[in-house]
Amino acid sequence: MKHLLATHALRYVKGGMVIGLGSGTTAREFIKALAALRHLDLTLVATSADSEVVAYEVGLGDRLRPMWAVDKIDLAVDGADEVTRGKLMLKGRGGALLREKVVDYAAEKFVVLVERHKVVDFIPARNPVPVEVLPWAWRHVARQIEKKFGGSTALRTGEGKLGPVVTDNGNYIVDWRPEGPIDERVEDELKQIPGVLETGIFSKRKDAVVLVADEKGTVEEL
Amino acid sequence: MKHLLATHALRYVKGGMVIGLGSGTTAREFIKALAALRHLDLTLVATSADSEVVAYEVGLGDRLRPMWAVDKIDLAVDGADEVTRGKLMLKGRGGALLREKVVDYAAEKFVVLVERHKVVDFIPARNPVPVEVLPWAWRHVARQIEKKFGGSTALRTGEGKLGPVVTDNGNYIVDWRPEGPIDERVEDELKQIPGVLETGIFSKRKDAVVLVADEKGTVEEL
Repeated sequence: MKHLLATHALRYVKGGMVIGLGSGTTAREFIKALAALRHLDLTLVATSADSEVVAYEVGLGDRLRPMWAVDKIDLAVDGADEVTRGKLMLKGRGGALLREKVVDYAAEKFVVLVERHKVVDFIPARNPVPVEVLPWAWRHVARQIEKKFGGSTALRTGEGKLGPVVTDNGNYIVDWRPEGPIDERVEDELKQIPGVLETGIFSKRKDAVVLVADEKGTVEEL
Repeated sequence: MKHLLATHALRYVKGGMVIGLGSGTTAREFIKALAALRHLDLTLVATSADSEVVAYEVGLGDRLRPMWAVDKIDLAVDGADEVTRGKLMLKGRGGALLREKVVDYAAEKFVVLVERHKVVDFIPARNPVPVEVLPWAWRHVARQIEKKFGGSTALRTGEGKLGPVVTDNGNYIVDWRPEGPIDERVEDELKQIPGVLETGIFSKRKDAVVLVADEKGTVEEL
């Protein structure tokens, strides 16, 4: 399904474009598929170290630029953890939410690739809400989130190192489980807390093209 | 004047308190003055590497804790670059705005120490508005600020290293010069831009005790 989605997304790619590469397993498939278009004059901005490595591996490494070095993003192609029919999205399971939001919000056209089970009635449906925070203040920030919005929080830990996961930007992630569905205004309200650097709530790309794949091998636009 | 302000601020200090130490030349004077109260049971949270070093130098190093390790801030004492009579403040010339905002906004009581010439009719009066940004996206973020709010921006450079100043949190600072006075709503609006991690606009502590010193040696509350 991910491969199918990736192939579909290639239709949006044209020569001369600056393309934002999302992060995660679906975005990886897109980067691999994009290698077939390496004859085109493309500039790439990767939203994680993971996506950069994949781009190098498929021979696109010389096209990579940091975000500050490009003047625009023509097209961003990214996955999502959960998407509602109203195109309220939850991202950040892979810890790349900060760079993803910079690129996805900057893109002239934003294409989101998801499998059917990621289309939900509300967010968060299954996943917590990831919040990138200043490490020095993480516990204070987590408490502020609980105090202001309820629910519970947990500092994200992983594998390969002891203790907290450190993002590509050197920060921590606090995973917040609210008591129920959240409103899109929570995106801005969360970020108003000092020490919150970004959130995995993406509410401002209602114009995104969301491509949904199902197990029968069909891809439909949401 | 700074020493006078620091001495005045000591009146707010009581045994058992967790005290947030601001950053900058005035906050340094307060930390030095605080050494006189080292017989009290105090816990200190410093908002910059600079303030940490001063605390160590005056024998208060063993009282320092990172923000995540304390349960509250009873009192924060900090300087400001500009303050209006309506207590809208501009901070961040010293590059410590992110940690300062975490601590100053968390404090039960917030005491601000300024010399008379820092009391202004509007902000920004003389200084640019400092914005801490994600280094990877700095030029894009600077363009977004100009596009959304007008004015001009400059990446902050300094001395002791080539190129951009790197904050204690590993980020860059974009100094924004708006075309005229700014409204307090700009604090939240700026932070909504992905890649903006914090701003030097402090609009949410209207309850602050602002102590103003003049050249005659008097200290008055604003």
